Amino acid sequence: MSDQFRLIKALLREPVDRTPIWFMRQAGRYLPEYRETREKAGSFMQLCQTPELACEVTLQPLERYPLDAAILFSDILTIPDAMGLGLSFAQGEGPQFAKPVRTAADIKNLSLPDPNDDLRYVMDAIRLIKQSLGNRAPLIGFAGSPWTVATYMVEGKSSKQFNTIRAMMYREPQLLHQLLKHVAKATAQYLQAQIEAGVDVVMLFDSWGGMLGAKTYGEFSLDYMQAVLKALPSSYEGHRIPKILFTKGGNAWLEAIAQTDCDAVGIDWGINIADAKRRIGAKKALQGNLDPAALYATPERVSALTQAVLDDFGDGPGHVFNLGHGIYPDTDPEAVAAMVETVVKSKENSFSL
Amino acid sequence: MSDQFRLIKALLREPVDRTPIWFMRQAGRYLPEYRETREKAGSFMQLCQTPELACEVTLQPLERYPLDAAILFSDILTIPDAMGLGLSFAQGEGPQFAKPVRTAADIKNLSLPDPNDDLRYVMDAIRLIKQSLGNRAPLIGFAGSPWTVATYMVEGKSSKQFNTIRAMMYREPQLLHQLLKHVAKATAQYLQAQIEAGVDVVMLFDSWGGMLGAKTYGEFSLDYMQAVLKALPSSYEGHRIPKILFTKGGNAWLEAIAQTDCDAVGIDWGINIADAKRRIGAKKALQGNLDPAALYATPERVSALTQAVLDDFGDGPGHVFNLGHGIYPDTDPEAVAAMVETVVKSKENSFSL
Repeated sequence: MSDQFRLIKALLREPVDRTPIWFMRQAGRYLPEYRETREKAGSFMQLCQTPELACEVTLQPLERYPLDAAILFSDILTIPDAMGLGLSFAQGEGPQFAKPVRTAADIKNLSLPDPNDDLRYVMDAIRLIKQSLGNRAPLIGFAGSPWTVATYMVEGKSSKQFNTIRAMMYREPQLLHQLLKHVAKATAQYLQAQIEAGVDVVMLFDSWGGMLGAKTYGEFSLDYMQAVLKALPSSYEGHRIPKILFTKGGNAWLEAIAQTDCDAVGIDWGINIADAKRRIGAKKALQGNLDPAALYATPERVSALTQAVLDDFGDGPGHVFNLGHGIYPDTDPEAVAAMVETVVKSKENSFSL
Repeated sequence: MSDQFRLIKALLREPVDRTPIWFMRQAGRYLPEYRETREKAGSFMQLCQTPELACEVTLQPLERYPLDAAILFSDILTIPDAMGLGLSFAQGEGPQFAKPVRTAADIKNLSLPDPNDDLRYVMDAIRLIKQSLGNRAPLIGFAGSPWTVATYMVEGKSSKQFNTIRAMMYREPQLLHQLLKHVAKATAQYLQAQIEAGVDVVMLFDSWGGMLGAKTYGEFSLDYMQAVLKALPSSYEGHRIPKILFTKGGNAWLEAIAQTDCDAVGIDWGINIADAKRRIGAKKALQGNLDPAALYATPERVSALTQAVLDDFGDGPGHVFNLGHGIYPDTDPEAVAAMVETVVKSKENSFSL
């Protein structure tokens, strides 16, 4: 049944009646109804950890727009939080860990969270969302990439240059590999549990892979994402579970990304999707890639910019429309409406393989 | 005479006895002698605006290491400061403008600084440095790219996502073009004056061009850099004046960059320099590209990582060794010594064209 969803088909490069659309952070602060629920929850983490509220905000964008997917409302830092690092979100400061991970002893002391126990609130949210969603749309589950999650664990907070973990990478590469291996194991178990709880698609967010270099991205980020992807089943209970890999700032390395076990590659706005298609579109579906700042334009211009991305991709299988990064909190919901409507009304691009 | 410098030759893709080396922010906080002079100056801007002190810090790294170039100690924000925007550097906060530029009236009110009057302190510093340098090494002058300078002018400060200027780009592109045109004009006059004051090379720093997209980089950053490059002479008083263009995060657009009037292209560590050479090395010299975080490694490993960049570039003309971005303030000067020594002792790569 889930195999009939437009999103699933496009991710598997099968024919669709039109390009499916969802977008990163579609359940988020740009929506007044989200801000209301967030207020009710008290804190961001309480919103994540209360299945009823997480379900509520997950569904909100689908009430407003004819989107082709829901994405679990959660955070990439649930795993290190469950490892006992003491996650908090200071007002306007981003995430912080009370106990950053810097030494061999720190790494050795990390627990391996049981996703059905320590992260049960996530699985409960998934079950609740699936129940509420019914056949309306598939549900995307997700996790951060091991590298990206490790940047927060080592830095202890969000960072501009990530010099603590990059110093570790050059000074004590084996130590960092131990940490990444542990996080990758926890991530695979976490996504496996998400699949068993009901998600139809999984996505890895490598938000900070772009900070790595041509010589370090493979070793410290891509290899661990591949380890996670490989550990996951390609189908569950008779349904294919497509896997999406998104490295923000990873356009230089698309060929390497296309060699992993993912089904689709997320791309940011740094590359024309026509070029990405030329480079890897025969191997993987592509997800993207409107500049989220384009939504600051007038609705007419948003529509034209959206259509341009559709035109750049052109005919053929394997395009999921998305933004090139999460939507900005000060975006006008009307601009979103213009974007979604343009995709939904776009010409049929069904075809035979 | 300046034409005999190893740096100049390499930038012009002429044979050299070995790869020349200098690095971004080589006069900077990682050096204890810099911190001492900075203390003496009182503030960062006073350091920039006092020719004797700017000269002192410019020469410091050459006293320590056998570098192939000095780079003027200054800041990319001297131009908007001279336009009267009220630049200040709050402790640990980065640059701030008292009067950000947001409206048509703001742009109309901007003055066009006279480089030999409003920015005379820069020209005085250049003359003093040239006098002190003698024939030891050539002097690199520089400016920020119009786009990068405009990001600070519009945002009013450093930013993570630059959403104010990116909103202007999509909402009021003509307004932004007016601003960029004005900044480009001021930048060309400023670099022309630097050349007349004695710099041997000019470089454009496009620190934030990488925030733009495949569809906006050309229109909002590259075109204005090209306007600046085109306005500058290719030689002055019988000497060639090579021009370097560096867009951080611009690896996806190297082919377009190579079509400008620059002589050399700076690259960050996101690309293997062998790939950059394959893509544009026949048209332009390349400058880069060791990950500045590599300097956190042990001296032995720094040496190996440095050698790897040299090996990646391989034989042939047109390589200037550099970091892929400015050196980090907490770098150990001993690591720098290992890097410089490795380049200086590298095998001869002279050749005939």
